[in-house]
Amino acid sequence: MSIQADKVTVSIITIGDELLIGQTIDTNSAWMAQQLNAMGIWVHRRVAIGDVKEAILDALDKEGAVSDIVLITGGLGPTADDITKPTLCEYFGGTLVRDEITYQQVMAFFESRGLPALKRNEDQALVPDVATVLHNTRGTAPGMWFEKDGKVYVSMPGVPLEMKGLMTDHVLPRLQEYFRLPAVVHQTLLTSGMGESFVAERLVHFEAALPPHIKLAYLPSHGLLKLRLTASGSDKISTAAALSIYFHQLKEILADITVYDEDLTMGEVLGRTLHAKGRTVGTAESCTGGYIAHSITLVPGSSAWYKGGIVSYANEIKSALLDVKPNTLQANGAVSEAVVREMARGALEQLQTDYIIAVSGIMGPDGGTPEKPVGTVWIAVGSAKELVTMKYQLRFDRLTNIQMTTTYAMNELRKLIV
Amino acid sequence: MSIQADKVTVSIITIGDELLIGQTIDTNSAWMAQQLNAMGIWVHRRVAIGDVKEAILDALDKEGAVSDIVLITGGLGPTADDITKPTLCEYFGGTLVRDEITYQQVMAFFESRGLPALKRNEDQALVPDVATVLHNTRGTAPGMWFEKDGKVYVSMPGVPLEMKGLMTDHVLPRLQEYFRLPAVVHQTLLTSGMGESFVAERLVHFEAALPPHIKLAYLPSHGLLKLRLTASGSDKISTAAALSIYFHQLKEILADITVYDEDLTMGEVLGRTLHAKGRTVGTAESCTGGYIAHSITLVPGSSAWYKGGIVSYANEIKSALLDVKPNTLQANGAVSEAVVREMARGALEQLQTDYIIAVSGIMGPDGGTPEKPVGTVWIAVGSAKELVTMKYQLRFDRLTNIQMTTTYAMNELRKLIV
Repeated sequence: MSIQADKVTVSIITIGDELLIGQTIDTNSAWMAQQLNAMGIWVHRRVAIGDVKEAILDALDKEGAVSDIVLITGGLGPTADDITKPTLCEYFGGTLVRDEITYQQVMAFFESRGLPALKRNEDQALVPDVATVLHNTRGTAPGMWFEKDGKVYVSMPGVPLEMKGLMTDHVLPRLQEYFRLPAVVHQTLLTSGMGESFVAERLVHFEAALPPHIKLAYLPSHGLLKLRLTASGSDKISTAAALSIYFHQLKEILADITVYDEDLTMGEVLGRTLHAKGRTVGTAESCTGGYIAHSITLVPGSSAWYKGGIVSYANEIKSALLDVKPNTLQANGAVSEAVVREMARGALEQLQTDYIIAVSGIMGPDGGTPEKPVGTVWIAVGSAKELVTMKYQLRFDRLTNIQMTTTYAMNELRKLIV
Repeated sequence: MSIQADKVTVSIITIGDELLIGQTIDTNSAWMAQQLNAMGIWVHRRVAIGDVKEAILDALDKEGAVSDIVLITGGLGPTADDITKPTLCEYFGGTLVRDEITYQQVMAFFESRGLPALKRNEDQALVPDVATVLHNTRGTAPGMWFEKDGKVYVSMPGVPLEMKGLMTDHVLPRLQEYFRLPAVVHQTLLTSGMGESFVAERLVHFEAALPPHIKLAYLPSHGLLKLRLTASGSDKISTAAALSIYFHQLKEILADITVYDEDLTMGEVLGRTLHAKGRTVGTAESCTGGYIAHSITLVPGSSAWYKGGIVSYANEIKSALLDVKPNTLQANGAVSEAVVREMARGALEQLQTDYIIAVSGIMGPDGGTPEKPVGTVWIAVGSAKELVTMKYQLRFDRLTNIQMTTTYAMNELRKLIV
């Protein structure tokens, strides 16, 4: 089965029992898909299987039958549950031999840490003689490139940093050479404040008028809705030009709910907004417990616009550090407009920033009351000159409520600034 | 192919282009796997495919051939790229008919929000007449249960909250009834401070002596190494008893590096440690930018042991709020033992907690110098009575460096307390 015969297709196989019992969330596949997509390779299947020889052999058969490329991650560690390498060796009909460069790397790695290299570490230098070895500069397990019946199979370790190094240094450039690739271009519009189905209703005519080589996708994400247009064509420049016409139409239709016209995190959007104006922000968080500060500071270079924040989880901290009056707390409760206003004012005073974000709410699962059910959150954003407040009623689990409060609060400040 | 014929097996199919282009990370599968495992159902394949009819039909064929159960999430939203329902209807040979209960729910949902229900919203009440409808109390897309050739297929929406509600209320109880399930028991030991291969070396004899129905897995996770023992047997009590003997052995062998003997987050471990002693903690964060506070407050009930924190990202905030002396900053730089000590002392004073965690470092990708390369981090933990400091040198990406610093800092405080 070839789903789209005109495209180079890839299956990603991730190997590891930890993926099947739910103790590890697979973030590698998403990163790999982004890189492959950007160069016009279409991921059409992702498969996760356990550290079981038969399952690996079966997956190699199935994915090799439907895809031009099979990328395999995981199962290459030094511990006993890793059986990927001997299985690959058997599948491609090779013998395990020592790769000298990898062997020297393993020895140097352990020597530099003053640790003895164990037999199982030394064995990481064994590779099937039918594979092209891709040297791993960030770890001790090498990548392996196999070719069979015109298809390419690549095995990489599952450690994200090592996999990313191998992909960037070896796999992507080699795939570029091996296949004649179409140009694929994405453009993403970030929106907030309107539900998916209402946006879709507004886009009915726009979508119906899209040519077959341009696709629209809806990607909701913690309070943001991303609209992604994807175009494919023979070369990057003309494909991008064709796409930009439709992207401009999309922006016009959704101007009132647009947050940004690039695929950024809300922390990146707020950072760019502040940076462009040369302004700074601080945070005063109760229910989000530091997550707004984290979302802002996850952006490299954020020290240019973020000075700091106060996590005032306990009421006594709200009073001691943010000068929230005990009377205000008693009269209104910690989750109230009055308290979030005083938190914002106190934090502006303490942190001496141009802008402030302050939040107080009940993220669940416990702590709700009939008057203030779980999910109630008050947000204040603004400056010493102008402070606006708003109330949200969320209905998700604790982490999602925290993430959505963070997105909404950052977006409210962005709206106030622009 | 049936990999383990004595086990009830499941394939999870996730549908959605967003999973294949890498804009969404699949967290549903991990949660589902945990629930299924706990009741003795073995997830042996997870497959992600796009919103493409042929890909869906092909995946149903392939997974139905190798698994007893096929659980499908995603592709049920109200927007135009969702084609799962008509495809399922065709595959199982049914006709789409309106489900009255779902229709009333959709109408009530929109009425309660004061919004008009669109045609595409009404269509969410359409279901194949060959399916048993599983009513979704958290959204407008119902679940659908199909049976074919002795196999069970269930389709659910991809929104995590809705999927979880359907699994808990309908799918898991129905599967329990439908299949005769073996008992599966897990026990997990959290360790820190020793690499995977060295732990494996120490466990060589232990692992070799494990009976075939007990398996050991190594699960590294941001500064923690989880060792998970899994046993299967005929009933829960005798299986758990058999497992506990080996788990006690494991604990004895790894006593010196053990963090906890349950599968908890580091935030939960620290919370339990503090709660048991009736003590409180506060945070003073520079490089982690609020992530330590977030990791502590993500635990429900954390207000019992966490009072608050200060994110002192800029040096002026370190001085203004934590009383770090400008001289100390100038003489040692912000990433230094002297500064992290003063941060800890200042925060203890300000927050009036029993314990404090303070960190300052360089998380990358920029900001490193030859003397203090990216990944350098100073940690101080302790109390007014006893403060200990340590330096770590990390070598990962920005987010991972932040997460590992968080784990290490919380674990250092845990060690000091116990």
